[in-house]
Amino acid sequence: MGLTIAQKIIREHLVSGTMEPGQEIALRIDQTLTQDATGTMAYLEFETMGIPRVRTELSVAYVDHNTLQSGFMNADDHRFIQSAARKFGLKFSRPGNGICHQVHLERFGKPGKTLIGSDSHTPTGGGIGMLAIGAGGLDVAVAMGGGAYYVTMPKMYKVNLTGALRPMVTAKDASLELLRQLSVKGGVGAVVEWGGPGVATLSVPERATITNMGAEVGATTSIFPSDDVTRAFLAAEGRPEDFTALASDEDAVYDKVIDIDLSTLTPMIACPHSPDNVVKVGDIAGTKVDQVCIGSCTNSSLYDMLKVAALLKGRTIDSSVSLSISPGSKQVLTMLADCGALSDILASGARVLECACGPCIGMGFSPNSGGVSLRTFNRNFEGRSGTADGRVYLVSPETAVAAALNGVITDPMTLGEMPEVTMPDAFKIDDSAILEPATPEEAGDVEIIRGPNIKEFPAGEPVDDDFAAPLVLKVGDNITTDHIMPAGARILPYRSNIPHLSQFCFEVCDKTFPERAKSAGRSVIVGGDNYGQGSSREHAALVPLYLGVRVVIAKSFARIHAANLINAGIMPLTFADPADYDKLSQGDRLKLSGILKGLDSGEILLQDGNDEIRLTCSFTDRQKKILMAGGLLKYVAGEAE
Amino acid sequence: MGLTIAQKIIREHLVSGTMEPGQEIALRIDQTLTQDATGTMAYLEFETMGIPRVRTELSVAYVDHNTLQSGFMNADDHRFIQSAARKFGLKFSRPGNGICHQVHLERFGKPGKTLIGSDSHTPTGGGIGMLAIGAGGLDVAVAMGGGAYYVTMPKMYKVNLTGALRPMVTAKDASLELLRQLSVKGGVGAVVEWGGPGVATLSVPERATITNMGAEVGATTSIFPSDDVTRAFLAAEGRPEDFTALASDEDAVYDKVIDIDLSTLTPMIACPHSPDNVVKVGDIAGTKVDQVCIGSCTNSSLYDMLKVAALLKGRTIDSSVSLSISPGSKQVLTMLADCGALSDILASGARVLECACGPCIGMGFSPNSGGVSLRTFNRNFEGRSGTADGRVYLVSPETAVAAALNGVITDPMTLGEMPEVTMPDAFKIDDSAILEPATPEEAGDVEIIRGPNIKEFPAGEPVDDDFAAPLVLKVGDNITTDHIMPAGARILPYRSNIPHLSQFCFEVCDKTFPERAKSAGRSVIVGGDNYGQGSSREHAALVPLYLGVRVVIAKSFARIHAANLINAGIMPLTFADPADYDKLSQGDRLKLSGILKGLDSGEILLQDGNDEIRLTCSFTDRQKKILMAGGLLKYVAGEAE
Repeated sequence: MGLTIAQKIIREHLVSGTMEPGQEIALRIDQTLTQDATGTMAYLEFETMGIPRVRTELSVAYVDHNTLQSGFMNADDHRFIQSAARKFGLKFSRPGNGICHQVHLERFGKPGKTLIGSDSHTPTGGGIGMLAIGAGGLDVAVAMGGGAYYVTMPKMYKVNLTGALRPMVTAKDASLELLRQLSVKGGVGAVVEWGGPGVATLSVPERATITNMGAEVGATTSIFPSDDVTRAFLAAEGRPEDFTALASDEDAVYDKVIDIDLSTLTPMIACPHSPDNVVKVGDIAGTKVDQVCIGSCTNSSLYDMLKVAALLKGRTIDSSVSLSISPGSKQVLTMLADCGALSDILASGARVLECACGPCIGMGFSPNSGGVSLRTFNRNFEGRSGTADGRVYLVSPETAVAAALNGVITDPMTLGEMPEVTMPDAFKIDDSAILEPATPEEAGDVEIIRGPNIKEFPAGEPVDDDFAAPLVLKVGDNITTDHIMPAGARILPYRSNIPHLSQFCFEVCDKTFPERAKSAGRSVIVGGDNYGQGSSREHAALVPLYLGVRVVIAKSFARIHAANLINAGIMPLTFADPADYDKLSQGDRLKLSGILKGLDSGEILLQDGNDEIRLTCSFTDRQKKILMAGGLLKYVAGEAE
Repeated sequence: MGLTIAQKIIREHLVSGTMEPGQEIALRIDQTLTQDATGTMAYLEFETMGIPRVRTELSVAYVDHNTLQSGFMNADDHRFIQSAARKFGLKFSRPGNGICHQVHLERFGKPGKTLIGSDSHTPTGGGIGMLAIGAGGLDVAVAMGGGAYYVTMPKMYKVNLTGALRPMVTAKDASLELLRQLSVKGGVGAVVEWGGPGVATLSVPERATITNMGAEVGATTSIFPSDDVTRAFLAAEGRPEDFTALASDEDAVYDKVIDIDLSTLTPMIACPHSPDNVVKVGDIAGTKVDQVCIGSCTNSSLYDMLKVAALLKGRTIDSSVSLSISPGSKQVLTMLADCGALSDILASGARVLECACGPCIGMGFSPNSGGVSLRTFNRNFEGRSGTADGRVYLVSPETAVAAALNGVITDPMTLGEMPEVTMPDAFKIDDSAILEPATPEEAGDVEIIRGPNIKEFPAGEPVDDDFAAPLVLKVGDNITTDHIMPAGARILPYRSNIPHLSQFCFEVCDKTFPERAKSAGRSVIVGGDNYGQGSSREHAALVPLYLGVRVVIAKSFARIHAANLINAGIMPLTFADPADYDKLSQGDRLKLSGILKGLDSGEILLQDGNDEIRLTCSFTDRQKKILMAGGLLKYVAGEAE
């Protein structure tokens, strides 16, 4: 049986597991990337692992999220990441050098390689045939240390492209069409491969737009073949040697095939507040627009920007619209300036922001109250723009320009002829804002710079056979990670500061919890059903760990949170009889015994005064080892020795 | 007796008063400008005056301060200002078009004209021979309505320049040298005229740097002659017709003359945390630098930026330094892009921020904790950078670049030869981001856009002959405007929202005050000595007005706050016998009688139970009329009818 592109890369990188959809597989990781919003934690985690240097082929630390720098926290984080990268052997892309995915595509991505990144849009790299997957900070830290990346073997979907895009219709519209068909859950557990004769008509930036937005259908990743288009792109970036051809086998088998004829597509738009709420632009033409934003890792390539400049040239944006342009990288911005396109953009009345994520993550340029904002970005979740009642639509650069010029949602096909845009044969290469790491010899002398916002990462402890501790908090059913560790603007700048964050732990349920847990030393939390549902944030395990929590007993756990607890070295245990939940009271002193045997047998005895309560668990061998080691980081460090 | 330049302009614009230093004079105002941080209030005030259109020769509304847009408030304010400008007959400079003072110099300033602006660095316009003065929002609103600007007739100082600057020594260094000599109080009550043979060697951007920083010596304003250099600048901006020659008379008399030989100056630096804490750069060379910022209304001209680009060309900044460049205007940025200078800047590793005030006012780019930041700005007050323990130094662009390249404070004269910088004969003129107002005929239909952050301005009430109200708050001596109306990041985004601000009124003294005052309807505050000291913020009068305060009785008042109270229609009255302060208790019901007669006689009777207390006042005729009208706005509106 033939293989898909993804299956071929997986086969080449398989460390353990079998390539059956739904089974856990472990992959060797060639490259990693982090951005700064998740990177501080990843490097704190890496540091805790005690491994002196990264063991990947290439690891890059980018700064692109927290670039506004309102207060000392961002600059402190940048300096921490820069010094950690220098010490641990990573390249460091300075703030202002660009958005991680755009820069990685330009300077580092290689067909056939595996990449994990602590950012959900890491699949952008699939545009040049990488197997590029978004992951948690700890997963990236482990991969940097040479550990495998554990993931569920995905199903294989194919989008079969025929025809070619008409002028004013773009790769973004193809992405939006797929979202319309599949919904935001339609790609879960699958790799989406884009193939068929239409692929050859798409440039690398167009392919990258599509793989980037594969994150929005929930896919594990998306991928394109590596072909002559890829070869030309890499050559233009001055690195023809990085090219490898990649294609799926003729007889590869797909779990699902979706046919899209590019020539029949029209400009599409995702309406508030979901990327799959997609209609044709023409269907809502005339809607008043207050703001237009062009950029983000989805649509900030030189190609995108040259099209925008060509459409804006000689025109002035509507006086009622505020237009921002965020070029994806310093390479893009420099080339725009050199060819006169930046002048054309500025003369239209547009505002040029820094080469960073910016408005896409609500870092500035928030729309007015109730404002309608058309954005070339990938997400339009409610409130993400920074304006709670803002109404964000997702569009192509062409549709964005049309709205900026007319002040209302406008089908760009009504704008007249698309001016011709010529891509240069060679990009302007200047890596001076990408700092090299210290040599292994120098690295020992590199001091990691810690401002007051950078605090040490809490370390777990190996599980003991017996354990006695007070029950410091008893909560009910459906506790979310937002209960455990709230987010929001007040708290987010402190994500590298677990001690500071700990003040807010369980704030929603019981403001006295942090103090009580701290003074208890080690402690136990008891919860009801579905404990830890919601987001995947690892802070919901790390902060309780910092406060001394070593065991959580619940009627049942949400899957990701249970994994995060294990990774942190906290045992998630369940009641054999859920009715026993009622026997426990906050303040009780609990005793667990026979833990080490229980990890194997699946049963552990809990004593609460005179009550004996049976607890159950079901850990894989790897999870047992993690708990015995005191958390994933220690486990990996031990394995690596 | 001959006249100085400032005296000539004052004489031409004198509405009332005599030109004796220390006397109040009233000036006819030709031009006004506002920025957005003070502009929202100014336009709310103008609206309250009920005058349909501005009556100046030119009024411009700029947006340059609140450009980060974290949350809906900024965008709401921008839209409010834009619509108000359109309705009331002002030009509107869109966000991103540049810093008010730089753009005003480029496109609107005229020698010999009077300009007031609701920004303390309005004196920048003195670089082309304007009498340009910073003022409060209400003063600007009144001037927009055709009212005179009341100011104390200044003394006349002269800086007599000889020689010419050496390469790597700049106008900024001359400003810093003056600060070193005069201190931040040395110019109070004076106009500083820069003259002598050295003037002809300075370009308009250099002159504007100097007049800009005249604000830091506390001068009413600073001014240069209008000469051939001025003529060439205006011609290059495509408006030769705006030129008028201006010079002081040979026999003009100055209260003080300071001699500066430009050829003996060396690079200077203002150390934390005051602009007059000036030493030679060489004296502290070698100090480690974390951050360098180039821009602000002081040093963001094309000339400044071309020098910076020339020095950075072919070099890379030190890896330990973060360098930001904020061009002063879209004109500057566009011309930098077109001539390749922007590429040179980007290739050095610099970050290019939007054309706005940015880091200078702590809007982003805050340094790391305890970080050393070298800035080409005009103020280095503690905490202004947004980092409480940041250490900010003020320098020239040349000194800034030298530090960015070397990572430590460096005398730029050690950098080698200064590359030659050629200014273009003509600037690139594109006013498409300056929106014209509606015609008077259209203006009636223009709706002012009010987001939820834009609230109506509270209106005062004419003083009654008798007045009875409770004493809602009794406070002690030395109450500052920060006690009355606190500032800070939590509160500043709401400066167009008096109702929201009112929740924080007197928060430091008594959190229950706002509710109590509101439920009392009208009320009285009693204070001790020096009530209202500190900043000039008009909110410290407007917010109490909103809460119903109509009278403040104190042992004594700070001068500016007393004026603000009168402008708001609140009577500031003093105890004839300060010992009577002790007779009054919070909660007492106070009765004032014979108020109208008392405004003239200077004595008003206060009854508190059985106590009769004599209060005194001393108002000018104009102030009496303001109180009788219910505040300055109503007074002006009445006068204008």
